[in-house]
Amino acid sequence: MDQPPPDVAALDESDPLAAQRAKFSLPDGIVYLDGNSLGALPVAAMERVARVVRREWGEGLIRSWNAHDWIGLPGRVGAKIAGLIGAGPGEVVAADSTSVNLFKLIAAAMALRPGRSEIVGELGNFPTDLYMIEGASWFSAGRHRLRGCAAADLVAAIDDQTALVVLSQVHYKTGAVWDMASVTLAAHAAGALVLWDLSHSAGALAVDLNASDADLAVGCGYKFLNGGPGAPAFLYVASRHQEQARTPLSGWMGHARPFDFTDSYEAGEGVRRFLCGTPGIIGMSALDAALDVMLAVDIAAIQHKGRALGDLFIALVEQRCAGFGLELACPRDASRRGSQVSFRHPHGYEIMQALVDAGVIGDFRAPDILRFGFAPLYIRYEDVWRAVATLRDILVTGAWRAPDYAVRRAVT
Amino acid sequence: MDQPPPDVAALDESDPLAAQRAKFSLPDGIVYLDGNSLGALPVAAMERVARVVRREWGEGLIRSWNAHDWIGLPGRVGAKIAGLIGAGPGEVVAADSTSVNLFKLIAAAMALRPGRSEIVGELGNFPTDLYMIEGASWFSAGRHRLRGCAAADLVAAIDDQTALVVLSQVHYKTGAVWDMASVTLAAHAAGALVLWDLSHSAGALAVDLNASDADLAVGCGYKFLNGGPGAPAFLYVASRHQEQARTPLSGWMGHARPFDFTDSYEAGEGVRRFLCGTPGIIGMSALDAALDVMLAVDIAAIQHKGRALGDLFIALVEQRCAGFGLELACPRDASRRGSQVSFRHPHGYEIMQALVDAGVIGDFRAPDILRFGFAPLYIRYEDVWRAVATLRDILVTGAWRAPDYAVRRAVT
Repeated sequence: MDQPPPDVAALDESDPLAAQRAKFSLPDGIVYLDGNSLGALPVAAMERVARVVRREWGEGLIRSWNAHDWIGLPGRVGAKIAGLIGAGPGEVVAADSTSVNLFKLIAAAMALRPGRSEIVGELGNFPTDLYMIEGASWFSAGRHRLRGCAAADLVAAIDDQTALVVLSQVHYKTGAVWDMASVTLAAHAAGALVLWDLSHSAGALAVDLNASDADLAVGCGYKFLNGGPGAPAFLYVASRHQEQARTPLSGWMGHARPFDFTDSYEAGEGVRRFLCGTPGIIGMSALDAALDVMLAVDIAAIQHKGRALGDLFIALVEQRCAGFGLELACPRDASRRGSQVSFRHPHGYEIMQALVDAGVIGDFRAPDILRFGFAPLYIRYEDVWRAVATLRDILVTGAWRAPDYAVRRAVT
Repeated sequence: MDQPPPDVAALDESDPLAAQRAKFSLPDGIVYLDGNSLGALPVAAMERVARVVRREWGEGLIRSWNAHDWIGLPGRVGAKIAGLIGAGPGEVVAADSTSVNLFKLIAAAMALRPGRSEIVGELGNFPTDLYMIEGASWFSAGRHRLRGCAAADLVAAIDDQTALVVLSQVHYKTGAVWDMASVTLAAHAAGALVLWDLSHSAGALAVDLNASDADLAVGCGYKFLNGGPGAPAFLYVASRHQEQARTPLSGWMGHARPFDFTDSYEAGEGVRRFLCGTPGIIGMSALDAALDVMLAVDIAAIQHKGRALGDLFIALVEQRCAGFGLELACPRDASRRGSQVSFRHPHGYEIMQALVDAGVIGDFRAPDILRFGFAPLYIRYEDVWRAVATLRDILVTGAWRAPDYAVRRAVT
């Protein structure tokens, strides 16, 4: 493939984050634009996992719960994440999955707003948020019902029956960003709480929960935080809610004195009460090491570069792939977009398959979305240029029309 | 230290499981009698984790969900566990923590027995079971209440108001074993379901869920299954209950078609519906590799050796440590005991600290229990002899009276 033109090369040369790429173990010959689905492997995470397995588990055995402070890991990892999302260190813990943490905080919010009957969620956004509202509603015998709203109608639907609004800050498919401060303000004006799902924003955007007066949040450890496949998730409870907030997932790790083994549950101090079972130490250690890489740079610089990468991608696609039926499917204004770009194409599935086979990894999301994520710590401007050159090549040659791709789509 | 006498050495020489020990990475100079709390490191798990991190995550990236069948891992691991606990392969999945899985199945049982008001649990057993009942009871607005019973009164308490009985098959402190078949029979006679917590039995006892007509079960991946610190747990739902059973933790991985991303939840086929969020692949891979070690031998042989190790330990303690105030705190009959032995001593804390410092690792459980676990895959009869020799030495010399131990106890 051709070399990128000098103006693109110049962007990499002046990139203040350029040195971060060397901290990741990346496969040769691949342009990886799917770090918003599974972040790449930090070298430090690989080393940390090897040490945790061989030394802490193998040699330390049970003693490592204290000797290596495994018991404090959910809080330590939580405090690191807090620094990326504008939260206080005592407001975040790493635990469980995003879905399980959604349930904990949906249930907590229901109990904090008992006189209200509805939980507002966004139709068409990542569905586990809606599913967990459904589950909580069902199990509480319908005390609170899900009110699913299209994005355009959602804020207007918040009223005096709304206990909670559950929103993914960045839309998984379109990358559209909710204005956290203004939605939170509107919800509070109606007496409702807001639970923000930061799965596609933590580690990519300069989220500021405290400045937005946020109540509750959850997020994912394996996307932009690079914690590894199925990494532990996190949850945030604003200090002002912690004493009243309660979770039905009242497991022993959230007990005030877990090692007293008393018969009755007593919620632990602060956000610790939202721990449940024993944390997965190997996976959480990988996330811990990955966070150190991210915390070595400024989240504002990460957000800035993510926007610039996305802007360059849009500009190059529109210049070099014009006339092939691609239609922008995300906000053009980078400040209203997550660190991802989406284009719509009727043959999006086949085009993405051809891209992956050509070494450019993005995602297809039904029915017609090609999604490209830009993880600013390891994606270069050069990679953006190469991805678009490959896309152009596939469109010009019609490589995506190979019968194999249509067959794959049919069996998917 | 002296060498073990010939009769003890002979037991190791004729042990059909003797070769298994080499499959574990064990620290030199340690007798590890705490595999019932955190199992030792299988060499294969260490190798597998390294490969998953470097190759599957680092090189395969998002493609590994299919290329390395990460998506099928919870079911594959579940099917392996099923083979150890007398379940069918489609009745078990690996997922989340024991506590979270308890909640899923407690909630499912409440919905399966809606006209009944009580959930019976055992006082004094590992408390997360009781805590999760409390949490489910609270969140369901008290539709079902916890009825906590002492072991001696428990079966008699099961009546026509009992929806569910939640029991740990092996008591974490005393090692006492419930008779699964007879308790299940009694519960069914009253129209109730039983949820068995197999945390201290899976991988140590020849559990037979199907033969016991069991309804529901959960268990731990990091004790006798050797899956690593905080390894994923598992859950079992008998085939006959699967179509009716529902969980409020209705996350996207349990959806019938998770990658359709539809707005409404639809429970997946069979036990898969009890998945919730994205599984932790690194930790679950360690468990998967650890299970292969265990499945290479017969669980009946594991149970047999566990009982023999425990019997030898009791006999040696009673011979060699007589007169020092140790009192047996577990069933003497090995068939009524898990793969662990407990002794009571008023200075149990200090004695266990001295043992650990001398390289014999067991557990102290308040107020006065010294607990020793025997993992038959890697514990030798020789280790039992060495542990008792060390215990005798500590008692004879009074090493446990060192002021430091009393200080440690005071600050615990």
